[in-house]
Amino acid sequence: MTDLIPIIHEKLDQAVSLLNEHHLDCWLTFVRETSQVYDPALNLILGLGLTWESALIVSRSGRKVAIVGRFDADTVRRLNAYDEVIGYDQSIGEPLQAQLAQMNPSRIALNYSLSDAGADGLTFGMYARLTRLLAGTPYAAQFVSAEDVVRRLRERKSSRELERIRRAVDVTQQVYDELFARPLVGMSERQVHALTGDIVTRHGCEFGWERAGNPIVNAGADSAIGHGMPGDLVIQPGQLVHVDMGLRCDGYCADLQRMVYVRREGESEPPEDVRRAWQVCWAALEAGRAALRPGVLGWQVDAAARAELTRHGYPEYMHAFGHHVGQKAHDGGSVLGPQWDRYGDLPNKPVEVGNVFAIELGVMVAPYGYIGIEENVLVTEAGAEYLSAPQMELWQQ
Amino acid sequence: MTDLIPIIHEKLDQAVSLLNEHHLDCWLTFVRETSQVYDPALNLILGLGLTWESALIVSRSGRKVAIVGRFDADTVRRLNAYDEVIGYDQSIGEPLQAQLAQMNPSRIALNYSLSDAGADGLTFGMYARLTRLLAGTPYAAQFVSAEDVVRRLRERKSSRELERIRRAVDVTQQVYDELFARPLVGMSERQVHALTGDIVTRHGCEFGWERAGNPIVNAGADSAIGHGMPGDLVIQPGQLVHVDMGLRCDGYCADLQRMVYVRREGESEPPEDVRRAWQVCWAALEAGRAALRPGVLGWQVDAAARAELTRHGYPEYMHAFGHHVGQKAHDGGSVLGPQWDRYGDLPNKPVEVGNVFAIELGVMVAPYGYIGIEENVLVTEAGAEYLSAPQMELWQQ
Repeated sequence: MTDLIPIIHEKLDQAVSLLNEHHLDCWLTFVRETSQVYDPALNLILGLGLTWESALIVSRSGRKVAIVGRFDADTVRRLNAYDEVIGYDQSIGEPLQAQLAQMNPSRIALNYSLSDAGADGLTFGMYARLTRLLAGTPYAAQFVSAEDVVRRLRERKSSRELERIRRAVDVTQQVYDELFARPLVGMSERQVHALTGDIVTRHGCEFGWERAGNPIVNAGADSAIGHGMPGDLVIQPGQLVHVDMGLRCDGYCADLQRMVYVRREGESEPPEDVRRAWQVCWAALEAGRAALRPGVLGWQVDAAARAELTRHGYPEYMHAFGHHVGQKAHDGGSVLGPQWDRYGDLPNKPVEVGNVFAIELGVMVAPYGYIGIEENVLVTEAGAEYLSAPQMELWQQ
Repeated sequence: MTDLIPIIHEKLDQAVSLLNEHHLDCWLTFVRETSQVYDPALNLILGLGLTWESALIVSRSGRKVAIVGRFDADTVRRLNAYDEVIGYDQSIGEPLQAQLAQMNPSRIALNYSLSDAGADGLTFGMYARLTRLLAGTPYAAQFVSAEDVVRRLRERKSSRELERIRRAVDVTQQVYDELFARPLVGMSERQVHALTGDIVTRHGCEFGWERAGNPIVNAGADSAIGHGMPGDLVIQPGQLVHVDMGLRCDGYCADLQRMVYVRREGESEPPEDVRRAWQVCWAALEAGRAALRPGVLGWQVDAAARAELTRHGYPEYMHAFGHHVGQKAHDGGSVLGPQWDRYGDLPNKPVEVGNVFAIELGVMVAPYGYIGIEENVLVTEAGAEYLSAPQMELWQQ
């Protein structure tokens, strides 16, 4: 079983620093029946499920209070992470008002965000409930988004988190090594998907997103690129085989793509078109990585990679260049992506030391298949260093 | 892998009927990055994850449209559940406005609810996004809660769903049979928890809520009752051993409690206090079950059970008598519970034919331990029939 408790203690302390950094008096995470909707921040500050309406409050003075249903109280107490754990029976209204009155905050960071899904765990119904529970108090008028706190809490990896990510990267690479040691020609996408499952099980890790589409397996140019499920296409000579997989080990993820070209009879290397596209993809990835330094804005990193690809005549990729990796493969927080409406404000955030990104891009090379490359990097003062052993050479079978 | 596709087709058709029943023009489910927040209704109408802002729209005329990010479109198309699947790149705004303009609804059921966590998948940030995306159109002013649609879609089980629940109940009972065939005295709560895991794995099912607290195991009167995790307490003669477990098989759950009394040397039956409490608990459960008929309101069922317990001098249980069981052990929808603030409007909903409930209650019998009983029932025209083989006799070891 994953032990998140040491990380939760670390992250709660980090949250106190972030409240001070952002001049917020407290951070309120309001949730209920987390088996229905699990606020993505809970894994950073609780690591458990809750049943009834619950409030987790962290104040800038360092006080941490959990108000939860009676049957959850004992489990939360055992974490030793909250100074006070209050169990209630009929309504959370009174203990919640009492705690806020005691803290007397004037700026309350609440668990919602327009842009960052990872900081947006408050449902619309729960927001309406909260304003009713606080009717007659000044607190409902003092809410601001907790996005800056939650986003940075997630983005600034501690050394303990980093250690776990490194392990996930290592295991993912071992799984890929075992997978690509097998001759893949004649196998269907579905068979590759099943075989990968067996290897992952042996390594004792879990899949970092839904198993049905993890790994994504693309055999040749007719396969659907994106978040699709492996199908019945059979790997043929003359095809690119592309695999995109995210694994979670000890609660932290890696997200890597790896690929191989299956030679036709008489071929000693991949066709010229494939080799050229591979080189340009790598030049673009490296251009993005070179731009990825503390202080730069996400869209600027994306633009560097995108420009390198398009200046060689390839079409731009229709996604972001980079996303954070952590407890989730798509960890939330900022993106290294274009300023498209669907990314909201997330491309406009600065890169920081301690961020871990998956950086990725690709091009279709008909009739051979899709080239997709994805590596994981850590941002340091000196720039972005690979956590993975980058696949700079296209493997061949 | 669980095959939800036949159920999704069924449920989408049922949704059309519900829109007509409730005089709603369409139902809009607005989500994004479901690996962060997964709208609980998605398992009824999609069964997949989505990455970017996505809109699933069902109209009362029967038209079903999915607007999703480009890389998710192909996977959604393969479901054959939506008449049209639109993939977009930069912004969902234009295709969403266009679809709504085509349907021209005047009442749009949106995926939020004050009371029902299972119908409240829209986050506060996503609500704000939606109103911005629809600025300048009449649609944002036409939203009403989709609670009635989502709740009933979940509560009215189809024969296919019922079949899967029956199987989950059967498997859960087999697991209990194997567990209680072992002499439990001398084992710790944690060991019982681990042993149960082995048995469940052999049966090929998964746990219906977090494994850490599933099953709940209570050895004697010092164990924490509720949603706690099994601890180091060792089962002794003269103790009640109480186990609360939810399993999911083929995507559907059972949620049952079972227990045993461990005799002391020379005892031929449990102590008088235990036997009396057991009888009264069963009388209360049966009183609730007798009240559980189509048309009755949830709080009335709870009141019948609660009154039977308290009139014998036992304290009332501090939870609801009953909750729906389905894809989740706590399935959402109405509750058979008291009109406490924390249950919102959910105790005021009528029971319907085809509902499946877990009904439960319990009392502490110091110094022996906690008696908790929980069975699963199906509501028919004739009343509530047991899906489980009810444990009317207290088992002994």
